[in-house]
Formats: sequence, structure tokens, C-alpha cells
Amino acid sequence: MTVTLGEIAAALGAELAGDASLPIRGASEPSAAGELDLALAMDPKYAAGITQGQARAAMLWPGADWRSFGLRGAIFAPRGRLAMAGLSRIFDPGPVIQPGISPLAVVDPTAELGEAAAVGPFVVIGPGVRIGPRARIASHVSIAEGARIGADALILQGVRIGARVVIGDRLIAQPGAVVGADGFAFVTAEKSGVEQIRETLGKREEIRDQSWHRIHSLGSVTIGDDVELGANSCIDRGTVRDTEVGNGTKLDNLVHLGHNVRVGRDCLLCALVGVAGSTRIGDRVVLGGQVGVSDNIFVGDDVIAGGGSKILTNAPKGRVLLGYPAMKMDSHIELQKALRRLTRLAQRVAELEARLGLAGGSGSDGGDG
Amino acid sequence: MTVTLGEIAAALGAELAGDASLPIRGASEPSAAGELDLALAMDPKYAAGITQGQARAAMLWPGADWRSFGLRGAIFAPRGRLAMAGLSRIFDPGPVIQPGISPLAVVDPTAELGEAAAVGPFVVIGPGVRIGPRARIASHVSIAEGARIGADALILQGVRIGARVVIGDRLIAQPGAVVGADGFAFVTAEKSGVEQIRETLGKREEIRDQSWHRIHSLGSVTIGDDVELGANSCIDRGTVRDTEVGNGTKLDNLVHLGHNVRVGRDCLLCALVGVAGSTRIGDRVVLGGQVGVSDNIFVGDDVIAGGGSKILTNAPKGRVLLGYPAMKMDSHIELQKALRRLTRLAQRVAELEARLGLAGGSGSDGGDG
Amino acid sequence: MTVTLGEIAAALGAELAGDASLPIRGASEPSAAGELDLALAMDPKYAAGITQGQARAAMLWPGADWRSFGLRGAIFAPRGRLAMAGLSRIFDPGPVIQPGISPLAVVDPTAELGEAAAVGPFVVIGPGVRIGPRARIASHVSIAEGARIGADALILQGVRIGARVVIGDRLIAQPGAVVGADGFAFVTAEKSGVEQIRETLGKREEIRDQSWHRIHSLGSVTIGDDVELGANSCIDRGTVRDTEVGNGTKLDNLVHLGHNVRVGRDCLLCALVGVAGSTRIGDRVVLGGQVGVSDNIFVGDDVIAGGGSKILTNAPKGRVLLGYPAMKMDSHIELQKALRRLTRLAQRVAELEARLGLAGGSGSDGGDG
Repeated sequence: MTVTLGEIAAALGAELAGDASLPIRGASEPSAAGELDLALAMDPKYAAGITQGQARAAMLWPGADWRSFGLRGAIFAPRGRLAMAGLSRIFDPGPVIQPGISPLAVVDPTAELGEAAAVGPFVVIGPGVRIGPRARIASHVSIAEGARIGADALILQGVRIGARVVIGDRLIAQPGAVVGADGFAFVTAEKSGVEQIRETLGKREEIRDQSWHRIHSLGSVTIGDDVELGANSCIDRGTVRDTEVGNGTKLDNLVHLGHNVRVGRDCLLCALVGVAGSTRIGDRVVLGGQVGVSDNIFVGDDVIAGGGSKILTNAPKGRVLLGYPAMKMDSHIELQKALRRLTRLAQRVAELEARLGLAGGSGSDGGDG
Repeated sequence: MTVTLGEIAAALGAELAGDASLPIRGASEPSAAGELDLALAMDPKYAAGITQGQARAAMLWPGADWRSFGLRGAIFAPRGRLAMAGLSRIFDPGPVIQPGISPLAVVDPTAELGEAAAVGPFVVIGPGVRIGPRARIASHVSIAEGARIGADALILQGVRIGARVVIGDRLIAQPGAVVGADGFAFVTAEKSGVEQIRETLGKREEIRDQSWHRIHSLGSVTIGDDVELGANSCIDRGTVRDTEVGNGTKLDNLVHLGHNVRVGRDCLLCALVGVAGSTRIGDRVVLGGQVGVSDNIFVGDDVIAGGGSKILTNAPKGRVLLGYPAMKMDSHIELQKALRRLTRLAQRVAELEARLGLAGGSGSDGGDG
Repeated sequence: MTVTLGEIAAALGAELAGDASLPIRGASEPSAAGELDLALAMDPKYAAGITQGQARAAMLWPGADWRSFGLRGAIFAPRGRLAMAGLSRIFDPGPVIQPGISPLAVVDPTAELGEAAAVGPFVVIGPGVRIGPRARIASHVSIAEGARIGADALILQGVRIGARVVIGDRLIAQPGAVVGADGFAFVTAEKSGVEQIRETLGKREEIRDQSWHRIHSLGSVTIGDDVELGANSCIDRGTVRDTEVGNGTKLDNLVHLGHNVRVGRDCLLCALVGVAGSTRIGDRVVLGGQVGVSDNIFVGDDVIAGGGSKILTNAPKGRVLLGYPAMKMDSHIELQKALRRLTRLAQRVAELEARLGLAGGSGSDGGDG
């Protein structure tokens, strides 16, 4: 596919300089760019690469002297990554999924697919499923009985959509995502060790034999519009009501949402995040990679948690969190500073003791761990 | 499916009040309940919702004044979650898997399936596989050569069972679970950096080039009865003997068990738990979400570890653990308290130094990190 | 399959004693060994088991008195695990994948498979795919348009290879691995909360509504020779250039590599490791289970990070890391020691204050967290 530099500028709403008719076939790092590539140099630090590559056009930082790089045209991007969103959309060829329904797909006669559906081989679509127009469903996907999916869905290889799951428009599901597995909910006949510990902060009575009774998941999963699900991510069904994911929320690879979790709108949950059962996540929350969130707590709107944080208690709206246990980022930075000085602090206390003729430090190695 | 309130009470062994003949079709949160739903209000805090919804019957806490909510019947649950186990079992419709063996499944002629098997489309069952009666196997599952699975298995979409894996009765495997991938075991020709560090606690000799020789997994995986495997969870084969999971143990989504691991009976391993190779986990152990357990260690019976804990050394029987590195929960709470006071402690030491005319604090910023 | 003891010794280049003609059919722990098994006792602590089992031959530590165990032959392994690599290779039967291309596979007519390919049922191979000789591709695999894979690939059940992915020779991909899902890259129209926090280390301006624009992944994934991918592991496509994995690198189960990540050669990334976008990992790096690495940083050659470490900043070549945030292993051990003494340290400061008539400790409970 080839577009002109002028068409790109118009699509991005970006300022153009030079030859609007230049044909462009893709985007590239400046030094690796070919003649038909748009060199991406939205920051002056990438300027040097432009002349190493073959590009005749570039996307540059505002005010860049484009002629000095020997270019024949340029686009100026005041916010580079935002321009990349538009640009990458233009050049993404998307996955190849043949139009029509593959003769090797199994579609239940009671399922309804909207117009212009593309369904790949070895797909299974169950009874009563309803899918909106222009769905693109790659090979090996399964969509179980009674699921409903909106318009313009892109469902990639091997995705599993469970029974009675409801999903809005413009879903993107990466390979292997599982929506609607059963919740992980088990109960013992008598009070279990975990229940005792939660009540007593760690004390246990006599330990008894215990085995687990399964709480089946009668609820399903409800997902809003414009949601993306990462590869091999998992969202469990609710116990009675549905697990919920709001509009515009994006899940990265290998994210886990437990049963009854409610995630608000426009959140980003990075890879390997785990949210335990019945927890409520607000709107516009950003959780870095491998963040964990305990069960039955509340994370307020606009919370941002750094990678690896473990959120063990309610987090108020707008808080920026880091650490295990997660604390305010300021406090975490302060604490890390103090920890770097801890060995020295102990020495200073020993010096004070020596000065006063005390011997408090001796024999303290037993510790309290 | 409709049952009567009296039938539910009898199935749960629970006390009944009012009209035993009331028809019930499902369970619901009180405020969202329809006429044929059983409202779930096992705690007084949910009482207000009952009159907001349409339910004519409810499951209530013991001693609740059921008539005051305008109900026509009630069941009393002294242990609400346990009652939910029974109740949810009654109302779970289960996944739709057509009876019989799909003509689109590939079942090796030497495989043996027990009576009343249901096998979905695009399933592959290899040579010499033996599966007990009443198996329900959803679409896209593969079961490799020589695997043996007991009675009443429920194996959901896209599950992978490897060669010679042995599994007991009543398996439930959620979509995408992988049992019997090869272990992650590699060795260098000379002593590797990791080996040096383990011997010296961090010191390394000269760093040499090293490449990895693969140790193939000759063992398989043996799993007991009543085990549940979460979506996209992974259990690796053993090197020589089998990796083992005991009766009644439940794995949540995205759990990893490395090669040669042995997990006892009636354990709960929550989402994203990772257990490294050759580690032994006792019976009735509960590991919260994202817990990690080092290789070649021992976690005793009845250990409970809070979410995100990293267990790096042997954990004695019955211990309650938290933190990274995991320590006794008491110690962890104590430590967190001390850490919250650490900046203040440093100030106090500085004040003491000032009082004594010492200057120990100055120039200490270099730290020891 | 049966080989002789002498053949095994020759294959391993190991010293042999006794009857070279003994037939051997497998390897076993000493106490469980049958007559045709080679008992594995490369350490004297396993010696006792030999006489409990039935083995007539064993692999022993150098200098062992093999006759004293009643054996008829023995092999001596100066480096036991290295010998296991060779031995396990001899006895690994490998997965059963029927030769030839299954009539139930969908192979695009423009795809090219090398000689002696074995392709299982329900495999989908897209347009323009090129795969080298002797590929073994198990059931349910999908390989998308334009992907290129070298010689001797072993691709197990349900693996997903995305469009235009390039992989070298001798790939081993465990079930459910996903190569080439889209990157997790989103941008807001205005500066987002995360961007503010990165600039200000935690301070935020007024919180605004924000929604996410998707940055499509135009790059693909390039993987070298001799790479192994764990079950349900995920490698995302790059944004403009390819995400890269070097020769000889091994990924364990459930590992995540974000977009644009570059991993060098001969690395080991253990289960549940997450590497965030655009980070560069050097050669021979070993990351323990559940290690996290922040985005846009650099981890030098030969770095080793213990399980659960969170690497938040650049790590120089050769460093040994532990903790969250990851620090030098020495420092981490030192810090843990100091933390075990922290409660006692606070008491000592209180005693000093008492001695000097100060009251600094009182009222300090408010803490700084």
C-alpha cells in the first residue's frame, strides 16, 4: 500500500513541508529507512540517523530544519507518540483473515453473525451466539453458547470466549486470551486456616484437615466497548453477577482478573498483572507490569501503580503507588533512601552507645525475623 | 431448570421457613433478583436489597426475620459461602458439549474412551490414551499419546495434555491449561555463573562464554483426584520421575509448576503463582496470588503465604508467611511498622548526635546500596 | 528403544566400567529402577537407593566403587547434570507427530515446507510462510502469513506464530506459546498521568479525563537459532522495528517480552518473567522466576537476577541482583540483616534518649508512610 506524504499529514492533522506528492509505503527508524519509508525522528536525538538512511521524507520534531537533512518533505509532530498512533494505523496491514465463513468452521445454526463476517478455519461458534457486523475471527477461536459480541470485533487465534459473555464494540482479543473461565472460589466445611488468619492477623487455632468445596460461577463476564485483551490473558466469570471491564480499558498479555472483579473505563493493566476476586478498580487506573491487587479491596480512579507493586489495602483516588506493600510513591522513594543509609545508621547508634558507655548493640544479632 | 425452595433446602441440608413449593430458577444479588430468583442475603448488610428486588424467597443469615422482608419463603445458611457451594452446583448449567464424539474430532483407533463420553469438534486424542467414563471434552483439546485420565473429567477448550500424563477422577481443566510441557532444565559444559553464585552467595569468578545444553524431560506428570487447573496454567514434566499434584489441589489461572515439583493434597495455588523446579509443597498449603517459591526447597503442610510473597527458603509446617523475602506474618507486620518510623528514627539519632556534639549523620549519603 | 551401556558411554564421552553390552532402555532414580534402567546416582547421597532398586548398571560419581553395589556395569560422570543432558537426549522418545502433512491441516498453496515435514491435524499455515526441513508441527498450531522458520523446528500444540515473524533453526516451542501478538502501546491526546509522574517522580497536575489511542505494531519478531519458548509464553511485535531474541536463549513458561525488547544470546528467562517495552537485555543474562524488568532500560551482559527481583534501573554488566527494587546481591543480604535488627535498633535509640532525658520516640507512630 502506498499513500502520499500529503495524505498522511491530512490524516494526522499535522503540519506538512515540502513535496506533498511523495509516495510513502511504510515507516522506519531513520537509519534503516528505504526510499519509500517515512523516517521517524520526532526527537532531535534521532536526527543523525536520517542521513544514514535512504528516506526522502521524515516525521520530525516541531521546528526542525528539514532541508538540512536532505529531505524532500517532512511532517511535524508536536506529540510524537500520538502521531505514531495515527501513522501506525495507516500502515498496519492487519492480520489476513479470508472474507466469509470458512467451510472448516463449525457455526451453530442458531448463532447469528452480522454482515461481512470473516471466520477462519477450525473456529467453533456455539448455540445462540450473536456477533455484530464486520467481525474478523481468526482460526481456532471458540465462542460458547449465548455469548454476545458487538460490531467490528477482531478476535485472534485460539481466543476462548465463554458462555453468556457479553462484549461491546471494537473488541481486540490477542491470541490465547480466555474470557469466562470459572472463578477460583472454594470453601471448607469448617472455618479454614485462611479465614482464621484474616480475622486474627496471623494467629491460628489448632490446624485441622480441610478439603475444598467448589463454588460454581453462575455469573458471566461483561466487557464494554473499545477493550483490548492481551495474549493469554484471563478473565474469570462472576459468582452470581458478572465480572466487569469498562469501556476503553486495555489488558496486556498474561493479565488475570478474578471473579467478580470490576474494572472501570480507560484503564491500562500491564503484563502479568493479577487482580484478585471481588476487587473494584476505578476509571483511568494504570497498573504497571506484575502489579498485584488483593481481593475485596478498592482502587480509586486515576490511581497509578509502578511495576511490581502489591496493592494490599484500599487505594484512594489519584494516588501514585509503588512497592510491596504498595505505598505512596513519595514515601517509597523516601524509604528507599533511608534503607540505603540503614547500615550506617546502626553504626551511628553504636557510636552513641559507646560514647555513653552503653552496650546495646551487642548480642542483638538474633533479630526479630 | 426450575427446582422448588424445599428441594434446595433439602439438597443443602439447610433450615427452611415458609412455602416449600416456591419455584426457583436461579440465584441473584437481592436488589437484582427476579420473581423466580433466590435472593442471596446471608449477611444482614444485604438485607436492604431484598425489598428493592422481586424475589419471593431468599437465603438468609440464621435468625433473620424473613417475613419482615415480604418474602414467601426462606432458607437459613449458618455458613453462607458453604451454602453457596451447594446452591451454585444446583444452578450451574455447565458448558454445552454435545453428547457423543464429534465427527470432527480425531481419535486414534488405539485410544479408549469410557461410556457416555462427549468430545467436541477439533479435538485430538492420541494413540494409547485411556479416559474414564462420562468425560466431557470441549473443542480444540489435545490429549497426547499414552495419557490416562480418570472418570468424570471436564476438559475445557484448548487444554493440552501431554504424553503419558496420568490424571485421577473428576478433573476440571479450564481453557488453555497445559499439562506436560517440557521442563526448563539447561546445563553448561563448565560451571555456570548461577552455580558459582549459589556456592559463594554472590561472588563470581571470571565470566566465561557459556551456552546451554538441554536436559530432556523423561518423566511425565501425575495428578490426583478432584484437581482443578486454571486457565492457561502450566505444569511441566519431570526430568526422570513425574511432577506430582495431590488429590483435591486447585490451581488458579496462569499458575506455573516447574519440573519435578511435588504439591500435596488439598492445596490452593492462586493466580500467577510460580513454583520453581524440584520444590516440595506439603498438604493444605495456600499460596496467594503471585507468590513465588524458589527451586529445591520445602514448604511444609498447612503453610499459608499472602499474595506476592516470595518464599526463598524452607518454610516449616503451619507457618503463615508474607513479604519478599517471605517471613512470618507477625514479623512482617512488625517490620512494616518499624519502616514507617524509619525516617523519624534517623532524625532522632541525628538529634542525639547533636546533643552529644557528634556529627555522624553528615556525609552518610553515599549509602550502602 | 534399547541401547547398550557401551553405546551410552560413547555418546556421552564418559568413562565405562564393567559389561559394555548390558542393554539399557531408560533412566531412573536408583530405588525405582528396573532391570533395564540405568540408575542415576551421580552423588554419593543416592548410593543407598541402588541396592533397593533392580538396576544392573548405574551412572555414578567419579571414583565410586561400582562393584560394591552389586552392579554389572557403570558409567562415571564428572559433571552429573551435563551427563543428564546427553543421557536424556538419548532416551527422550519425543512427541508423536505423524510424518507428512495431515489431510486435516490447512496449508496455503503459497506456503513452502521443507523436506520431511510432519504437520498435525487442525494446523493452519498461512500465505507465503516458509519453513525449513524436518519441521515437526503438532496439532492446532497456527503460523500466519509471511512467517519464516528455519530447519528442524519442533512446534507443539496450539502455538501461535504471527505474521512476518522470523525464527532461526532448531526452534522448540512449547504448547500455547504466542509469538507476534500486538504490542501494548497506547497514548493519550494530552500528556497522561503516567508521563507527568515519570517527569516529576510522583507529582501530578490536575487529573483530566483521558482515553487511549492505539499505536499499532508495524514491526514483527526476529528470533535466532536454538531458541526455546515455554508454554503460554508471549513475545510481542515491535512498533517499527522487530522485537528480537538472540541465538541460544531460552524462555520458560508464561514469560512476557514486550514490544521492541531485545534479548541477547544464551539467556535464561525463568517462568513468569516480564520484560517491559523497549528494554535491552544483554547476552548470557539469567533472570529467575517472576523477575520484572522496567521498560526502556538496559540490563548488561552476564547479569544474574534472583527470583522475584524487580529491575527498575539500568544494570551494569556482570552484576548479581536481588530484591525489589533490585540491588546488588551483597547489598540485599546486608540490608536484610539490618532489617532483622531494626526493631532492636529502635529500642536502643529509645534507651539512648531515656539516658539523655530526651523523649524523641513518643508520638512518632504517625509514621511517614
